[in-house]
Amino acid sequence: MSNAIEDRQNDRSEEQPLILVCNDDGIDSEGIAALAGAMSALGEVHVIAPMDEQSAVGHAITVRDPVRAREWDFAEEAGVAGAYAVSGTPADCVKLAVHQLLSRRPQLVVSGINRGPNTAVNVIYSGTVSAATEASILGVDAAAFSLCEWDGGHYDAAAEVAQRVARRILAKGLPPGLLLNVNIPNRALGELEGLLVTRQARSRWEESFARRVDPFDRPYYWLAGEFIDLDEGDGTDLDAIDDGYVSITPLQHDLTAHEHLAAFKEWTWEED
Amino acid sequence: MSNAIEDRQNDRSEEQPLILVCNDDGIDSEGIAALAGAMSALGEVHVIAPMDEQSAVGHAITVRDPVRAREWDFAEEAGVAGAYAVSGTPADCVKLAVHQLLSRRPQLVVSGINRGPNTAVNVIYSGTVSAATEASILGVDAAAFSLCEWDGGHYDAAAEVAQRVARRILAKGLPPGLLLNVNIPNRALGELEGLLVTRQARSRWEESFARRVDPFDRPYYWLAGEFIDLDEGDGTDLDAIDDGYVSITPLQHDLTAHEHLAAFKEWTWEED
Repeated sequence: MSNAIEDRQNDRSEEQPLILVCNDDGIDSEGIAALAGAMSALGEVHVIAPMDEQSAVGHAITVRDPVRAREWDFAEEAGVAGAYAVSGTPADCVKLAVHQLLSRRPQLVVSGINRGPNTAVNVIYSGTVSAATEASILGVDAAAFSLCEWDGGHYDAAAEVAQRVARRILAKGLPPGLLLNVNIPNRALGELEGLLVTRQARSRWEESFARRVDPFDRPYYWLAGEFIDLDEGDGTDLDAIDDGYVSITPLQHDLTAHEHLAAFKEWTWEED
Repeated sequence: MSNAIEDRQNDRSEEQPLILVCNDDGIDSEGIAALAGAMSALGEVHVIAPMDEQSAVGHAITVRDPVRAREWDFAEEAGVAGAYAVSGTPADCVKLAVHQLLSRRPQLVVSGINRGPNTAVNVIYSGTVSAATEASILGVDAAAFSLCEWDGGHYDAAAEVAQRVARRILAKGLPPGLLLNVNIPNRALGELEGLLVTRQARSRWEESFARRVDPFDRPYYWLAGEFIDLDEGDGTDLDAIDDGYVSITPLQHDLTAHEHLAAFKEWTWEED
């Protein structure tokens, strides 16, 4: 009996899951250090992340230029087996990690902890989410974590939440083609109300561009805007965050609007 | 009676739809000239597109830098009311066009005609599709057009198809939150088998990186890969193209995996 337990423990340590940690804020950001630390309790952690901030890159990949990777000293964070800073996007990092830099296939890819929320329509612009999406495309379970605060905040609590969610994913596995997008209110752990499974809120940016003129009299434009929640229904990611809950949204990377296929098949395309 | 017809015609010319043409191959590409020409039969055409090739940028937007727009001489193509080359991504072009450069709101945004297919998993990396996605987020009907050929090809036939699809969208309108992703086999118009409404095929890239070393002995990596169709079902975009049909896939930008929400709500998140 005790032998069996010992054997199981040995098995478990030999089979320690490899966890890849990525982000879009850059490898030297506060959030990725917190996330790597939290993952080190669950497996062999490798950090492979962009050298520089890559916010709002969406699912960009680098196809016309080479990417570079340089070993990174992640010493301040205990329990990281290896780290590389990559010259590309978050999706590049995941591709390069899985196909080139890691010695074996990761069981889990986690991305974050992002500085600022990735809720509602912002999911589609998010480099943080795209790292997890790329992992899911490659058939690896993945989750993205974002702290709903731009200036500092409770990364310790967010890391605790990330560890809990990652532990669940490692234990149960995700259905193919899905990833989890987790947004965490900026609160101490004890102040979080719990975890809710949500859907993306319908929303848009009320955008404007500030037009300026450079010293050579040429115009340039800065994107600015105000975020608008258009959703009047229940169960959205924005609602959960507003109410102090961690929001967990399952996302898919098949973009086909399946429930509209039948209607479009009835359109007459051939004539005017 | 003849007066009524004349009035209607006047109304129609006053209400001529404004059509925005964008792409990701750059404003001086063959495909966008063909698309702009085809659209000029349907409305007042404005071309606002990236200065340089922006392939595989996904849904990147420029948030940390300003973007520039410079008036572009699109004279070789009849019927274009105005054109700008923009320093940003396809999504930037659409935002800047709608919020700043166009004098009124477009009724339709078309993107392309892309050099090479945007089918299956490639949809998520596509700058061409992202221009249409951004339009849909902004509440404007939109479609992306891609010619399934990398070197030259039947842009004239693809433009004819684009005109037909655009005419349909202008007549019927799209449901909110949807855009159309159109892929066109590289054939003369008479050789196309017809148009099919499809879903994205499940697929992935069998990727590898070519590792090289620069003159300073530092490694760099080129992404390379072979595309794999994993889908054994019917009705995919890849099937349609293989069979000589134009593929029309309705896409959504809400990424929530709605049909999995209930299952995830049964997960126990709070304890180990």
